[in-house]
Amino acid sequence: MEPVVAVVVAAGSGVRLGGRTPKALRFVGGRPLVSASVAALAAGGADAAVVVLAEGLQDDFQQVLADATVPVRFVVGGATRQESVANGLAAIAADPELAGCRLVLVHDAARALVPPEVTARVIAAVRAGARGCVPVTAVVDTIREVDEGGSHVVDRSRLRAVQTPQGFDREVLVEAHARLRVTGEHVTDDAAAVEALGWPIVLVEGSREAFKITEPFDLAVAEALAGGR
Amino acid sequence: MEPVVAVVVAAGSGVRLGGRTPKALRFVGGRPLVSASVAALAAGGADAAVVVLAEGLQDDFQQVLADATVPVRFVVGGATRQESVANGLAAIAADPELAGCRLVLVHDAARALVPPEVTARVIAAVRAGARGCVPVTAVVDTIREVDEGGSHVVDRSRLRAVQTPQGFDREVLVEAHARLRVTGEHVTDDAAAVEALGWPIVLVEGSREAFKITEPFDLAVAEALAGGR
Repeated sequence: MEPVVAVVVAAGSGVRLGGRTPKALRFVGGRPLVSASVAALAAGGADAAVVVLAEGLQDDFQQVLADATVPVRFVVGGATRQESVANGLAAIAADPELAGCRLVLVHDAARALVPPEVTARVIAAVRAGARGCVPVTAVVDTIREVDEGGSHVVDRSRLRAVQTPQGFDREVLVEAHARLRVTGEHVTDDAAAVEALGWPIVLVEGSREAFKITEPFDLAVAEALAGGR
Repeated sequence: MEPVVAVVVAAGSGVRLGGRTPKALRFVGGRPLVSASVAALAAGGADAAVVVLAEGLQDDFQQVLADATVPVRFVVGGATRQESVANGLAAIAADPELAGCRLVLVHDAARALVPPEVTARVIAAVRAGARGCVPVTAVVDTIREVDEGGSHVVDRSRLRAVQTPQGFDREVLVEAHARLRVTGEHVTDDAAAVEALGWPIVLVEGSREAFKITEPFDLAVAEALAGGR
């Protein structure tokens, strides 16, 4: 089977999380977030990872990922998440050992507890022909949309919360990012970029455990759940 | 100041949570959910609570709420959440000690860790003139809406996740429920019922800690957070 390369976006500073340590190096369940994420993706079927990090942190990242079970490459991120993903894709193309891959995942390092079966479902959908695939969960709270007059309730049964890893045909994702560079457009995520090319996005079942660690509340939750595993 | 009575909806069976114990009697942080909820509301400014429970459970509920710091009444729920709230409102009207209240809260017992300041903000907004008020939080994930052709991304900056306690002018909420009985309509929550009468709903800041305990995942999170308090 064709190898799967995961672009792991880990360049965020983690301002909302507090503290001075960059978010991806914060510990959860006895290991840094970025190590937990790479291990989770490898367990779900990723064969290699390209970790996109902030400038000056390569030594730290190399150290915490020294025990990774799959080959890991490092590349410095851009000013936005979108540019960081583009840098990750460029790193794949420039690496002789990775350039043959046709299936890429894009993952937020902050979703460190994503269960292997979620990654496996995303990979399976792309192998089955999807150009883009995202894991989603149902929305549990009532949702209101703010409008000019105040706000109104939205039918939440039709809403889905989108997680990562998102999976793509690599050529299509590269084309999508090339198009964004030309148009100067900014999109919510990689799936939206691929959708803008006209490809439908396949939705597969995500998991509550794949939540994004953003605030101290999330870190406490992750610590508790990781400890219980 | 006028007394505040909280209708605490605790009649759910908790099928998604698993186990045989009714959800509101499941323990979190060393106490049943319903006790934690009543204590949280009292800490935020509620002066009394009407707990809406499933038939046959009054003895159990009375026992676990024996140490509540505010007076607690009990009433059996209806077939739907909407009917359960209506039963709670009827219980207030029928009780000489509560019938004078002009400000009611409606709360899901499953949001057992709601911080006192959230309840206080809701009460303050109704005291300031709002007929209906709900606590909300930002939506952190990308949101897709399923449509005929597949799905599309929704602008999440305009979306808010709605929590409880929701606060109301009691007369207005009673009128809203009376209207629902006549029309046979079903609404998402009490705020939507009041909105259907033409009253705007005031949004105040909620809290991630006011999440609804629905699945085993949520109970694990609540247990971890309650233990750390």
